[in-house]
Formats: sequence, C-alpha cells, structure tokens
Amino acid sequence: MINVLGQRQQDLLRLLLRNKGGLTVDELSRQLEITRNAVRQHLASLESDGLVAPGISRPSGGRPEQLYVLSDEGKEIFPRQYSWFAELVIDTIRDDAGDEVLKKRLDRMGERIADQLRAQNPPGANRQKQVEKLAKVMEGMGYNTGGATVGEGKPVIEADNCIFHNLAMKNPDICRFDLALMARFTDSKIDHQECMAKGGNVCRFKFSPKPKTSS
Amino acid sequence: MINVLGQRQQDLLRLLLRNKGGLTVDELSRQLEITRNAVRQHLASLESDGLVAPGISRPSGGRPEQLYVLSDEGKEIFPRQYSWFAELVIDTIRDDAGDEVLKKRLDRMGERIADQLRAQNPPGANRQKQVEKLAKVMEGMGYNTGGATVGEGKPVIEADNCIFHNLAMKNPDICRFDLALMARFTDSKIDHQECMAKGGNVCRFKFSPKPKTSS
Repeated sequence: MINVLGQRQQDLLRLLLRNKGGLTVDELSRQLEITRNAVRQHLASLESDGLVAPGISRPSGGRPEQLYVLSDEGKEIFPRQYSWFAELVIDTIRDDAGDEVLKKRLDRMGERIADQLRAQNPPGANRQKQVEKLAKVMEGMGYNTGGATVGEGKPVIEADNCIFHNLAMKNPDICRFDLALMARFTDSKIDHQECMAKGGNVCRFKFSPKPKTSS
Repeated sequence: MINVLGQRQQDLLRLLLRNKGGLTVDELSRQLEITRNAVRQHLASLESDGLVAPGISRPSGGRPEQLYVLSDEGKEIFPRQYSWFAELVIDTIRDDAGDEVLKKRLDRMGERIADQLRAQNPPGANRQKQVEKLAKVMEGMGYNTGGATVGEGKPVIEADNCIFHNLAMKNPDICRFDLALMARFTDSKIDHQECMAKGGNVCRFKFSPKPKTSS
C-alpha cells in the first residue's frame, strides 16, 4: 500500500525501515537530499497519518537529538503475507485432518470469540437489541455494518466490507467462522442471504430464533 | 490504510465499496457533489495507484456508460484481519494438539513451499548461487533482501521487512516456517543471527553446510 504515497514520503519511510532505531531530521535531510524544513513537513504529515512517531532522544554534544521511527501502523504499510499464511495453515489442517475437522475447528474458533465478546458486553434485552450489539462489535472489527436493521420482521445485519475477503474468496468455509460467531453471540439461527465472497454486493445476515431440538 | 488518502478519494472509494457493480462518472459526480472533471481526475489518480479499474459498460438510451469499480488491490485498502485470523488458527492448533505438533506443522509448511519453489527454479551451481536464488524469491515475497552477500566466508541474507511481522511478534514460533523454507530450499543449516521480531534491525540468516548425520 506504500505506493499510494508520494515518492519522497516512500523514500523517507524506507529509510526508517532500514534504520529501525530511528533517524534525526539532519540524517533524513542528508540521505534524502532535501532541506530540513522539507523533512519536517513530510514528518508532520506522516505523523498525522499515524505512520511515523517520535522515538527516543539521542544524547549528543549539545542538545539531545530527536529520533523519528516507524510506528506499528507504519511498519504494516510494507508488504505483508498474512492472508497467504492463513491460507497455508488452513490447507495444512485440511490435508492432515480432513474437511470435516476443518469445518468443526472454524466453528469452534467463532464460538470461542463469541464467548469472549459476550463476557465483555452486557446482554441485550431481546434478540433485536443483541443483534444491534453485535453490529457494533462487527463495526469495530472493520465489517462496516452501519448498525442493524429489520427485514421481514427479523433483525438483519448488512456488511459491505469483508475483513477476510481474500481468504473467503479462496475458501468459502472461512465464512463458517463469522456465522458461528454471530450465531453464538446472539443465540440465533443465521441465514446468510447474500455473500461478498460469492459475488454479492454486501454480506446480509438474517437472525431467527433457533429451531427447538426435539428430545 | 485508506486514511493516508485525501478525504475526497476516500469518499469515492467508499462509494465503490458500497456499489460493487460499479458507478459512472455522472453518478459519482452527483453523490460526491463535485464536477465530472474533478471525478475524472480522482479516478485517473486512483487508477494509476491500482485501486480503481474500469468495469463493464452499462447500456443506456444513447452511448453506453462506463462503470468504475474497486480493483482487487482497492478492496484490500479497507480493514482486513488476516493477521488476527492466522493467530486464531495457530492458537487453535496449539490448544488442540500441543506445542510440538504446532512446531512440526510450521516446519512442514515451510518445507512444502520450498519444494514448490525448487520445482519452479532451476538449481544453483553451488550453495552461494542457491542462496542468491533464494534471496530473489524472498524479494518477490516482500522481504526486501536486496540480494545475498557473504559474511565470514558464508552466504548471508539480510531482510529488513518481515512479511509476518505482527504474527511473529505474538508468536516467535512463526519464524520456524521461514527457517524451514530456507533450509530446505538451499539444503543448508541456517543461523538466525538477528531477528526483527526480537527487536533486531533486520533478519540476518547465515547459511552453512548441514552437519553430517552419523548412521
């Protein structure tokens, strides 16, 4: 994603990547061959984007010199292969243990996270309230839900950003994780009416009471 | 990462996220309340960054209307949780099967990828040549190696970008994947002399002949 920045800011960030202890304005100015004022302007802009942060001050002969470092977010602007890695691990589980074990494991992962989230959030008074809580939690994860609505008398969540998009495109079983999480959190049956990984415009989830299991 | 773009370009990308089938210049102009020329300039800039692409043309009464859509890369500028997901899967393997199984699985994943890469790349004439090949392969993955060097008479690779950084910070066992990959690809013993996940400035790998196993 670094390519969306201007060339000079890219060069500055690459210098900080190569010097993780940080660099001073003077050092950046020398290495980029631009004035210290220009360096300061770039640093201010990158700092306000959250990509750069002031580091420690280095003692020098006179005034200690301020170092600038990549922030955690700044590091993450460089290439990452998390999606590929997750895919490899998922493939390995399937190869070792088979499809059914993989599916069960994805279900269990979703349920475990739902239990953690339930412990952190007071329960809603009814299903609609609980789905509204879930929509907020999902908003915080990045799903871009814009809250819960009602469709055909039942609570509905629509998300237009899939936080696992590449993974779900490669392996639709990944959606089991989300569905298990939502079902457990709201104690509902979920209808996945539309799915972005299958070409949908959004992911649309409808929440109904769980069917009674006959004894 | 979308926050490093200007506000108008963010708004434009968010409209395309909500309308995955695409929007025309006219529709974008109306919804963003800016001129069609301004829309065209933003689209040109976003297209050259690889975030937006022309979609299909929509038949209309007169001339068919060109639609613009998010590219695959453009979708990925919105929040993703691949690293968290990979972490969850890794934790589940450890919980289910224990530390030793997890380590073996990471080793096996690295070896499997090394075998695939060896099949795609003709072997180097000697260890140094083979390590140089590996450095190029790693460059392509995003490690930022700048090629292989020689240290104390042995081939060395230094990478200043860790493509699994967040994962490796949470769980240093992740490095086993890289080490297994490199060892198998070069048929070498690897010394991980410095590691970014442990506060190093780079990851530094030294390659030696494998110790002979006594029969």
